[in-house]
Amino acid sequence: MGVTITGSGSYIPSGVAKNDQFANHHFYNEDGSKFGQENEVIIEKFKAITGIEERRYIEENLVTSDIATFAAQKAIEDAGIDIETIDYIILAQNYGDVKHGSLQSDTVPSLASRVKHNLKIKNPSCVCYDILFGCPGWLEATIHANAFIKSGLAKKCLVIGAESLSRVVDQHDRDSMIYSDGAGATILEISPEEGDGILTHKTATYTYKEANFIYFGESNNKEINDARRYIKMYGRKIYEFALKHVPEAMKECLTESGYKIEDLKKIFIHQANEKMDEAIVQRFYKLYGQTPPKDVMPMSINKLGNSSVATIPTLYDIVKRRELQGHKISKGDIVMFASVGAGMNINAMLYKV
Amino acid sequence: MGVTITGSGSYIPSGVAKNDQFANHHFYNEDGSKFGQENEVIIEKFKAITGIEERRYIEENLVTSDIATFAAQKAIEDAGIDIETIDYIILAQNYGDVKHGSLQSDTVPSLASRVKHNLKIKNPSCVCYDILFGCPGWLEATIHANAFIKSGLAKKCLVIGAESLSRVVDQHDRDSMIYSDGAGATILEISPEEGDGILTHKTATYTYKEANFIYFGESNNKEINDARRYIKMYGRKIYEFALKHVPEAMKECLTESGYKIEDLKKIFIHQANEKMDEAIVQRFYKLYGQTPPKDVMPMSINKLGNSSVATIPTLYDIVKRRELQGHKISKGDIVMFASVGAGMNINAMLYKV
Repeated sequence: MGVTITGSGSYIPSGVAKNDQFANHHFYNEDGSKFGQENEVIIEKFKAITGIEERRYIEENLVTSDIATFAAQKAIEDAGIDIETIDYIILAQNYGDVKHGSLQSDTVPSLASRVKHNLKIKNPSCVCYDILFGCPGWLEATIHANAFIKSGLAKKCLVIGAESLSRVVDQHDRDSMIYSDGAGATILEISPEEGDGILTHKTATYTYKEANFIYFGESNNKEINDARRYIKMYGRKIYEFALKHVPEAMKECLTESGYKIEDLKKIFIHQANEKMDEAIVQRFYKLYGQTPPKDVMPMSINKLGNSSVATIPTLYDIVKRRELQGHKISKGDIVMFASVGAGMNINAMLYKV
Repeated sequence: MGVTITGSGSYIPSGVAKNDQFANHHFYNEDGSKFGQENEVIIEKFKAITGIEERRYIEENLVTSDIATFAAQKAIEDAGIDIETIDYIILAQNYGDVKHGSLQSDTVPSLASRVKHNLKIKNPSCVCYDILFGCPGWLEATIHANAFIKSGLAKKCLVIGAESLSRVVDQHDRDSMIYSDGAGATILEISPEEGDGILTHKTATYTYKEANFIYFGESNNKEINDARRYIKMYGRKIYEFALKHVPEAMKECLTESGYKIEDLKKIFIHQANEKMDEAIVQRFYKLYGQTPPKDVMPMSINKLGNSSVATIPTLYDIVKRRELQGHKISKGDIVMFASVGAGMNINAMLYKV
């Protein structure tokens, strides 16, 4: 028995924010000092490191559970299933529904419950919950669905990653240029074929020294004295952390599966930062004395930014639909999913398409 | 193979708020009209329905993840396990860490990660996540732990329910008197004995008409025009909903287990409202043409209020320690856990001590 992705869908917000939109922002360092460079230079360097040219923001009248619903509808349609047969809706998010202009996170009821309501599903046995697990949330929710299906609790699960980081960014923080909004969803089902679908997975949580590498903090502009907090991160520490631990988790998945590094067709990695993602994959192949094959790593960050939990299911969906030039996946392909983010959490999963 | 609770702990906040503390509050209805009664009468009626004489509030310098840590420490000590052998920390909460005087929910990193950090656990294979599932969150997290243990993903899980509702109450809403703060934790482990521990469980999510029975809404005092939102509920609708669906779920658990209603020693029910809880248990026994035996339902709401996800693990812990007069549980006892709350979610679990 295998657990396979039988449908996928994504929602790419209509609001395009290009890098030049940040040209007049006032950027400060964490200690409140002004950035010693012109914005033009800051933006150029930012693009060189992260690969981000533009990002997406949801419309003012929408919240995260709305875009989660849009992605879910597409995944359900793609899988061709009856909505009343879904056993679980697992929604990965981190900040709840934050209305435009508000600073409060609305998490009651859970966003998964809101999606079920929006989808007009009646079956009370369709259980809804949200998981908070940083950026690796969608992949971890997939691991939950796999466990529930394997333990007989469920047959069909709707797994969603949705986030609207535009609602929690500090405009005086250079990192605000990284964050984006989006939603991706998948349907997971039992497959009768042995050796199909999810092959192996690995998760780790590092908190001893790492717990606050990504945190909720005040504005870098110390003149703003309203105690409001925003998404914050220590980019350099995260970079080193990810480079050390993500390749390890990926290798564990591959080793446990019995597949070889040469069997790997694609790596769907969390779209955190282009240079970091490239370095992770380089390091992973180096563990096998190799360099990454061309086109092993589809990337969407240049146009879509970092939408946290939404990047991987969105990227998978785009590649599956052959909407990302130069990339495709076919039945039988061995692919890796991998992520890193707040917690600090890391996960990886090997999957046979 | 069974999955059993091998340790429990709870944290009861030191701040006691008696009913007379609300004597000078200005209560309004949802439509903004003034309550047509003196506060003395409102409080008397409130006590007669909910059973609540006093509730607990955390100290100003604490947040939810702190009290979750205190409860976790006690559960770990009670189970006598090495902290480095814990495979999962699953924390049920609904509003994140809300600092005293703040209106923002802090959920990054997850509260489970904060607890792991506070406990100084180093093992990266101890995976931490939060589940948002309304008041039934601790029981649902227990069902997760059971699935993970049964599917071979874990051997030992730390399951926590922690909430500080005092940070999200509208003082102009009569329902504010219900809400309390608290944390309860349990350790779940594999038991070699077949037929021990978790026997059966049932979960349901009702969203078609019910999704917003508990929600995040503005103050009942319409003169406060700051868009700040608070925990809100439609009490009458919840009452009818709970009476209809909780007994059903409890009956399903009992039927599936093969045990008889006469075998049931205790019901650990979410401490939502005394009259509602009594009516649920009455209705449950009525399904068997019976009335509830005396002492089947330990209650802590009169002194501890409704602390959401924390009520059941706290109540279980108190009874296990024989700190609730007239109640005890012994090895081999068949007990039921049951809850209802935001989502709208319902769950029940039959357990052999």
